[in-house]
Amino acid sequence: MKLASTLDRRLLAVRGDHAVDLTDALGLTPGPGGPLLAFLERGGTLDGLLAIDLDALPAQPLDPARLAAPLARPGKVVGAPVNYRDHQVEMAEQRTIADYGVFLKATSSVIGPNEHVRLPYTDVRTDHEGELGVVIGRTATRVPPERALDHVLGYAPVLDITVRAGEDRSTRKSFDTFTPFGPWVTTADEVPDPGALELRCWVDDELRQHASTTDLLYDVAELIAYTSHVMTLHPGDVIATGTPAGVGPIAAGQRVAVEISGLGRLEVRVTDEGAIPYAERPGPR
Amino acid sequence: MKLASTLDRRLLAVRGDHAVDLTDALGLTPGPGGPLLAFLERGGTLDGLLAIDLDALPAQPLDPARLAAPLARPGKVVGAPVNYRDHQVEMAEQRTIADYGVFLKATSSVIGPNEHVRLPYTDVRTDHEGELGVVIGRTATRVPPERALDHVLGYAPVLDITVRAGEDRSTRKSFDTFTPFGPWVTTADEVPDPGALELRCWVDDELRQHASTTDLLYDVAELIAYTSHVMTLHPGDVIATGTPAGVGPIAAGQRVAVEISGLGRLEVRVTDEGAIPYAERPGPR
Repeated sequence: MKLASTLDRRLLAVRGDHAVDLTDALGLTPGPGGPLLAFLERGGTLDGLLAIDLDALPAQPLDPARLAAPLARPGKVVGAPVNYRDHQVEMAEQRTIADYGVFLKATSSVIGPNEHVRLPYTDVRTDHEGELGVVIGRTATRVPPERALDHVLGYAPVLDITVRAGEDRSTRKSFDTFTPFGPWVTTADEVPDPGALELRCWVDDELRQHASTTDLLYDVAELIAYTSHVMTLHPGDVIATGTPAGVGPIAAGQRVAVEISGLGRLEVRVTDEGAIPYAERPGPR
Repeated sequence: MKLASTLDRRLLAVRGDHAVDLTDALGLTPGPGGPLLAFLERGGTLDGLLAIDLDALPAQPLDPARLAAPLARPGKVVGAPVNYRDHQVEMAEQRTIADYGVFLKATSSVIGPNEHVRLPYTDVRTDHEGELGVVIGRTATRVPPERALDHVLGYAPVLDITVRAGEDRSTRKSFDTFTPFGPWVTTADEVPDPGALELRCWVDDELRQHASTTDLLYDVAELIAYTSHVMTLHPGDVIATGTPAGVGPIAAGQRVAVEISGLGRLEVRVTDEGAIPYAERPGPR
């Protein structure tokens, strides 16, 4: 099943160029986290979703302009700092997650396919990082890798937008609009092997990143195992699994797209509306 | 008003040794974030709380053993890395938030006064950091310091428990149970100057930290201004404003307490139940 959310907080099951609205059938009253989070927080499960007879519900043409992030505000957004061999080489890094751990992005940085990435600074480089996103469906505390995938609701393309400066990753990666996510979550039953997905990331028509998730240093199961050793993962939490080589700057007016085999294509525009010189960021100095 | 939450998700207004249960009066149906978050997420405001006639509602004796964190799972938990002059000296640091930015702690690390801090590792030092916590009550995006305090719901003692190792702050500070918070939120109307509060932190009966918030490098308003320049702050988000000098290790069996003038005393116990050797943390190596 492909689960999308709309700007007016409806939960859709996408079927080709049509969509079935699940919101009323599931009796959802979404809060700021959106309808999928509302479903998960009241105990909804992947099995519960897959038990819905979509053929018995009316389908409407899918309007891509209505799509929001599948989770408007996830419980948390976890990132993996160095998790592809080629990106490790590109960054001149010896260390991995074993040394660095994972980092957190602000959940307020999530946007959907119809919003723009806003560059915060006029004079500091901001990069795209195309990634495989994992959505947790079942609470995970200290799970071993061999059972980790049982805790996955599904997968989606994600962009981890990053300012290249000296601050803590949580700051550099948490500006509003810095986590484009979507266009929908493809449930785990449709992704037999998350370690065999092709990921491509473009800026305008230039292919910048092209990799397979087979090259992840910590694969999805190991990443869930490590993360859940540190912090309990709750339904609706998202893990961005790290970015391959090819990271580069983005500029106002460009389009950034990430596409993952079977999971769809997420595309957003970049704007510098509201950008300020770095020296003018607030604070006593 | 002093807002507390209970282990069974009731919202209380604490009045001395009694408490008024506001849950039904406000018609709250709390989710995993607890009753105060439910109130805020449906648009509830500080003014709305202060308009309640507490004398018209029944009071019961306050049972401290029922108290949970005032927000079981805040929207986000923001931390300030170096924000007291004496801690800056203690850490041999030249830099401040202007260089470091802020960091994020996992919301799943929050516990209340009746839970224990669990040490994750048998052989890595874990420290206490006593801090003033700020709870956001009104959405804040790029607010200037002179209007920042308008966005505060209230204040509470918080402990930023931290593993001393090499990982990203988000990992070292996000282990489950690493953000004790409470015993309640004192609303902003009762705190005329958050820059004139006395903070004390004990381990067992030893006073380890003793400072005034007048010594904050970024005061509460400047911290909200900086943070909201990076990320939109939503009602129910928490900012831990940084720790003064005196940070030190904690050990199983000890009690850690933080007390702030007018905001109450938060005390938790430390356990090493489930602790493992650092070398045994999960991950391919």
